Amino acid sequence: MTELRQDPTTRNWVIVAPERSLRPRDGAGNDARRASGGCPFCPGNESMTPPETWRLPAGDRGWRIRVVPNKFPVLTPTDRPERRGSPGFLAMGGHGHHEVVIESPSHAWDIATGDEAEVRDVLRALRSRYRALSHQSDIAVIVIFRNHGPGSGTSLAHPHSQIVAAPVVPPFVRRRFEVARRHFDDFGTCLYVEVVERELAEGHRVVMKGGSVVAFQPFAASAAFETWLMPSSHQASFGDADDEVLDELAAVLRTVLLGLCRAMDDPPYNLVIHSAPPGEEGCRYFNWHLQIVPRVSTPAGFELGTGVSVNPSHPESTAAILREAIASV
Amino acid sequence: MTELRQDPTTRNWVIVAPERSLRPRDGAGNDARRASGGCPFCPGNESMTPPETWRLPAGDRGWRIRVVPNKFPVLTPTDRPERRGSPGFLAMGGHGHHEVVIESPSHAWDIATGDEAEVRDVLRALRSRYRALSHQSDIAVIVIFRNHGPGSGTSLAHPHSQIVAAPVVPPFVRRRFEVARRHFDDFGTCLYVEVVERELAEGHRVVMKGGSVVAFQPFAASAAFETWLMPSSHQASFGDADDEVLDELAAVLRTVLLGLCRAMDDPPYNLVIHSAPPGEEGCRYFNWHLQIVPRVSTPAGFELGTGVSVNPSHPESTAAILREAIASV
Repeated sequence: MTELRQDPTTRNWVIVAPERSLRPRDGAGNDARRASGGCPFCPGNESMTPPETWRLPAGDRGWRIRVVPNKFPVLTPTDRPERRGSPGFLAMGGHGHHEVVIESPSHAWDIATGDEAEVRDVLRALRSRYRALSHQSDIAVIVIFRNHGPGSGTSLAHPHSQIVAAPVVPPFVRRRFEVARRHFDDFGTCLYVEVVERELAEGHRVVMKGGSVVAFQPFAASAAFETWLMPSSHQASFGDADDEVLDELAAVLRTVLLGLCRAMDDPPYNLVIHSAPPGEEGCRYFNWHLQIVPRVSTPAGFELGTGVSVNPSHPESTAAILREAIASV
Repeated sequence: MTELRQDPTTRNWVIVAPERSLRPRDGAGNDARRASGGCPFCPGNESMTPPETWRLPAGDRGWRIRVVPNKFPVLTPTDRPERRGSPGFLAMGGHGHHEVVIESPSHAWDIATGDEAEVRDVLRALRSRYRALSHQSDIAVIVIFRNHGPGSGTSLAHPHSQIVAAPVVPPFVRRRFEVARRHFDDFGTCLYVEVVERELAEGHRVVMKGGSVVAFQPFAASAAFETWLMPSSHQASFGDADDEVLDELAAVLRTVLLGLCRAMDDPPYNLVIHSAPPGEEGCRYFNWHLQIVPRVSTPAGFELGTGVSVNPSHPESTAAILREAIASV
């Protein structure tokens, strides 16, 4: 049982999830990357996770990818989404879904060093679950994310991504859509397509291009080596990406992460897939995209008080370093 | 030289500050808290900092508090605030002020364990600099913050607060004012005063009350033991706090931090003072307040993608623990 509570001063939501403090931790450090008998995501330990919602089978009763509900979910389908409480103390049950995509049976597998076909399968698994969850009732937004390495906030080292389907669109997410919608209303164009086109035209911050997928470090990158991967033509929802785009995305993602691994000595990072909310897939002003943020500095009071990040490097410089690292791969 | 760049997809600003990566670090761990010959904030090392902007003298040529420009500022007065670039690539010089308030000559001093009179002097120093900076040209917002302990993002252990005066109001800050202004337009009341009144009426989340200053853990606390300190009557700007309120604030702040120290074994934390922007001191819908956020969990991809925090505990429970820790002080 979790609860969503609204901060009356920002109208942002917080998830109160007391059971999360019970999560097992293996430290998620590099040392922990060796297969460990107690890893709930390793083959043979399938009974340690809740029952699968999806599987990519392999061989006789084996698997290449498993999707399971998170054992310590921030949101659960059985909690009810009705609002309760009085103005200023608005709350609702933590209704939603929180799934874990176990990306490989191998404890030491990683996107950066895996086969391209394996990365492709991971992206297809994510898309498959994205599509399934977007049809669930009372779901307003779906976010896919991946925490890699010590310092990234992950509690388990075994390679996995996560999907959260939530019953409200948080103001932070809504704002992106509002900015893009205003741009569309003013100029009649998709802001995200324009951003990609401008980045390609300027060139300094482009890391690589693979088919229709462009990797670049944004003009206002919030952290050193922050990198975005985006289709260059308009597509609002990650659920609508076709196989061809996902294949291109797999190739670019693998290469960019391998480049980051080389350039920064396998940094911890958070990866997020931003997508138009269910019901707004048809909107003409948003592009789904992947955001990779290496966790190399610690946000402090300034960031907490202002929401403004301090990037200790120019994205033009770090993009050049990343291009070089990729060229030498 | 730093630069402010606007993210075209959120209109939020990022500070690009390449020289920040040169900052000295002492680790800021507990071990580093012992006076160290190389600490730039210790007496005798005054020449290691830029020239003082303010001082609380003590004895013959000594000092109790020094305020100096940050040697590795995120913003500087000499950078020009004019916007440049084209739509989508909007930037401006990193104009502003970034000061460090060295709170004590003692390397091991802390607010939680210091004399109340010393805490009072720190708050008065902050108010004095807040007032001075609010009269500088091209300043749109002032944020005061304090990073305490390893993991808080601080680079130096010697007790200090920081003040940043910035030339733009970031969307994250503006949003609080918009929410409060809409409340004022709808109901004719100050949302923040109402929040305090409701917290006092409910009682579960109130930590303590000292004169007009109330300490409580907000209904939608974003982290375990997050605590706010706020005057119970309306006052928009921290610069307008009078001596009496600051004295009450000093007593409550010291007690709350000592309680946190006991209850959580001296946790790292970030402290922020939120205040109405210069020029809007007269607004009737905002209260200045202190926000203390212990850094006990690591935000990860979910928080990055949604702006939603996961609090692993109920503020009602942690407020009770904090009240108990304070009672035993």
